[in-house]
Amino acid sequence: MLRTRLDPGDTKTVDLDDVQDVSMRVLLGRGHGMPNFALRHFVVEPGGHTPHHRHDYEHQVVVLEGTGEADSAEGVQSISKGDVLYIAADEPHQFRNSGTTSLQFICLVPLNRRNGEEVPGS
Amino acid sequence: MLRTRLDPGDTKTVDLDDVQDVSMRVLLGRGHGMPNFALRHFVVEPGGHTPHHRHDYEHQVVVLEGTGEADSAEGVQSISKGDVLYIAADEPHQFRNSGTTSLQFICLVPLNRRNGEEVPGS
Repeated sequence: MLRTRLDPGDTKTVDLDDVQDVSMRVLLGRGHGMPNFALRHFVVEPGGHTPHHRHDYEHQVVVLEGTGEADSAEGVQSISKGDVLYIAADEPHQFRNSGTTSLQFICLVPLNRRNGEEVPGS
Repeated sequence: MLRTRLDPGDTKTVDLDDVQDVSMRVLLGRGHGMPNFALRHFVVEPGGHTPHHRHDYEHQVVVLEGTGEADSAEGVQSISKGDVLYIAADEPHQFRNSGTTSLQFICLVPLNRRNGEEVPGS
């Protein structure tokens, strides 16, 4: 058994276009020998957001702390602790922190894209 | 985007051998059109436990609430809210609630076994 802990102080800043005040950590990914999918911890500070983008692999998301907005094909929806979200492959999406405390969520991805290439951040 | 919520009142009793006071719900699984892996919510009541077993697929676990024990190839270890665990395929394991409140965790599995058959509860 491998083990680690959720720790918002142990995430690293995500330095990508269209990303604001987001940090993340791969909790269990290909670097830990995962065979199929990867578990990542995201922290979005108030006013911050992930990129508005789409890609050829899915997300499963569980909101752990805070409040925000999910912008997806269904429009903008409020999200908060306890919400469970699924973004299908190729669906445009963005997560934004609209609150006053950190928005924290876990986000699952498969290890590989459709063409067999590695999913970034897996 | 699909969405649901973690709700310990919305889980169903798991009626299997060597399972005591456990309920679960498939939050995002093959019935929701997942392509690769499934997200399940487990609630183990005080004194309860999952089966001590092994199988040919992995688990990723995030403890959401409560305290308990994980019995694995490394022996018995205490677990609590915020712990992230990985049980590899073929590793014997059991989760037990040693506390006085519900032990809640999410548990990820791939959709398919090595031989292509469906993973139970996916």
